[in-house]
Amino acid sequence: VTDTDGFGADNLPYGVDETGHVVVAWRDHVIDLTRATGLDVGREVWASGSLNAFFALGPEAWDRTRAQLQASLSEQPDAALRPRRNLRLVLPWEVGDYADFYASREHATNMGRLLRPDGDPLPRAWPYLPIGYHGRAGTILVSGSDVPRPAGLVGPEPEFGPTQRLDVEVELGFVVGTGSPRGRPIPVSQAERHVFGAVLLNDWSARDIQAFEYQPLGPFLGKSFATSVSPWVIPLAALDPWRVEGPVQYPEPAAYLKACEPRGFDIHLELAINGHTVSTATSAGLYWSMAQQLAHLTVNGSGGRAGDLFASGTISGPAAGSEGSLMELTAGGQRPLQLTAGAARTWLEDGDLVTITGWCGSRPEGPWLALGEVTGRVVPYGTEVGAL
Amino acid sequence: VTDTDGFGADNLPYGVDETGHVVVAWRDHVIDLTRATGLDVGREVWASGSLNAFFALGPEAWDRTRAQLQASLSEQPDAALRPRRNLRLVLPWEVGDYADFYASREHATNMGRLLRPDGDPLPRAWPYLPIGYHGRAGTILVSGSDVPRPAGLVGPEPEFGPTQRLDVEVELGFVVGTGSPRGRPIPVSQAERHVFGAVLLNDWSARDIQAFEYQPLGPFLGKSFATSVSPWVIPLAALDPWRVEGPVQYPEPAAYLKACEPRGFDIHLELAINGHTVSTATSAGLYWSMAQQLAHLTVNGSGGRAGDLFASGTISGPAAGSEGSLMELTAGGQRPLQLTAGAARTWLEDGDLVTITGWCGSRPEGPWLALGEVTGRVVPYGTEVGAL
Repeated sequence: VTDTDGFGADNLPYGVDETGHVVVAWRDHVIDLTRATGLDVGREVWASGSLNAFFALGPEAWDRTRAQLQASLSEQPDAALRPRRNLRLVLPWEVGDYADFYASREHATNMGRLLRPDGDPLPRAWPYLPIGYHGRAGTILVSGSDVPRPAGLVGPEPEFGPTQRLDVEVELGFVVGTGSPRGRPIPVSQAERHVFGAVLLNDWSARDIQAFEYQPLGPFLGKSFATSVSPWVIPLAALDPWRVEGPVQYPEPAAYLKACEPRGFDIHLELAINGHTVSTATSAGLYWSMAQQLAHLTVNGSGGRAGDLFASGTISGPAAGSEGSLMELTAGGQRPLQLTAGAARTWLEDGDLVTITGWCGSRPEGPWLALGEVTGRVVPYGTEVGAL
Repeated sequence: VTDTDGFGADNLPYGVDETGHVVVAWRDHVIDLTRATGLDVGREVWASGSLNAFFALGPEAWDRTRAQLQASLSEQPDAALRPRRNLRLVLPWEVGDYADFYASREHATNMGRLLRPDGDPLPRAWPYLPIGYHGRAGTILVSGSDVPRPAGLVGPEPEFGPTQRLDVEVELGFVVGTGSPRGRPIPVSQAERHVFGAVLLNDWSARDIQAFEYQPLGPFLGKSFATSVSPWVIPLAALDPWRVEGPVQYPEPAAYLKACEPRGFDIHLELAINGHTVSTATSAGLYWSMAQQLAHLTVNGSGGRAGDLFASGTISGPAAGSEGSLMELTAGGQRPLQLTAGAARTWLEDGDLVTITGWCGSRPEGPWLALGEVTGRVVPYGTEVGAL
């Protein structure tokens, strides 16, 4: 079977269409699961408007449904199939809490050099635990949502105005499918059974607002205005063949963070502005893995809910051109990026379309798996874009 | 009318009982609104398991319902009345996002002196905007919920273990009843119309975990394990008679933060451990007001949802004995508090019962208004306390 578009039988990611039906991407089509045959999960789950009802059935049901879909793909009735192109997809699940990590050593080092040039670039706790913070769940947006330029107070003598340093962050997001009770941490060895799947994530950031506000409680309005995610949730099973060993961890992590290898995933990530690629990286070198992030998030007994989202933080590689943010790519705005002969960018301008694309494998030569894309357009300050 | 318990006709706070019915506290009783007469809001709203359906009706409906309740109090049928004592109440609304501020100048100054003894105690941005961060909505707990001691990595050479510095923070929480679209900030002059009411809030904190993890992204596992709120949401209308002018603000706030006076509320707050009062303060001196906090939260265009919760941060007064955390009351654990002749505390011990009580007025001599209390007991590390 030639699978040229990365959405073959080994992928089968889940989305939700604008009528509230759960759909699965398959090649150039989607399968509307409310009309699909061969599944033992009931239609009410697929017509519920989000994936949360499916999450609640647990990992055995996710695995069984995946196997049943793979077995019945070529026998699906015409009524269950629609072209994937031009399909309107919505945010496919109800987000509980959203936490964002800082798991790439290259990114944390780059940011430290830019923000604290005289000190150690890595924060003191960084080698010992996955540093993270809670973001705003209510502004998790599906790909394609416009992003109004945010405003805020900017230093040094603070003035109010639209951000002049609008940035993006290339990240992977992980969707919790099975929660855990308060008081019972999720062991790192079992963390993956709690994760339903992965999305691409753009953590839009206003660097000037962030720089003024972030001491001592961390990022707040500089990031809370928007976080975009791709519409297809890639099941963890689909990513299984693309595992890689993570980088050696020294100092040795605490017992609750000791993960079995291969703990990483080799996912290619590409960042483009108005169609021009400005960065390419892979998640293979991510220091703190998905499982380590979830084990850390719950080790204090906070528990978790199905629908919680946690993200890697910006993924940057070691090479020039592999940085996952304009902050890094432009050395803090000092070194503009040339998009075309006539267009350069340090920070984003109104009208800019930002696209993050993700895939596994060596497309298009060999077998590969698509994660799709997450896009968003910057619209001017003051544009009202509808109720949450 | 003598109103000795602070739950008279001028209060009428909302809660939800364990059967999912909305109830209103009145003197020693509650009124079950599913059985009440004289209201034009339909029964389905009162039987929906949370206050969110009522929030959705908007401020005119809140005001009308309050007036109808006040008019019909003495005519409510017996079937609608139950004794308030021993009633089991649940978390009365579904929390969207939770943001916590740092709005007390006295608290921020005390913390700065303890954590950064050589620098300016107030962070640079503090006088210009209400500094805040997003917390974990999934661990907002109703009063009475047990709080297992959290564990985590503690520096300097990090070791994993249960926190040795478990603390509390005395705060006020504000429940958003009407959201706002993305891209349209809530003006400070209209912010109060978006707020449904107030709760007492205990922001449990593990100071050793927090100290090791918080740079540069702010508090995370040191606070995400539990935040307790009182079961009664006090309508903003009930707090209206207890307004006070806030402290003079210098430097002059940015236009979006300029609030009309009286911007504050004079709410007495008392913190007790195992029944022994350790701190008393009032919210009258809070530097950044409720309306200023909500205006700031949305000025970047993030919008908001009904059910969002934002809190003041620890409320400390200027006098000794008015600090709202053990961190401040014990000078960072250096000066134990004597509870009884035989019992002293620097930090909380397993089994400790923490209670925050709130009221307006000079109880019991004059007219007063009760906010009720928020309690929670510390249980040992590893105690599983049920699904979220």
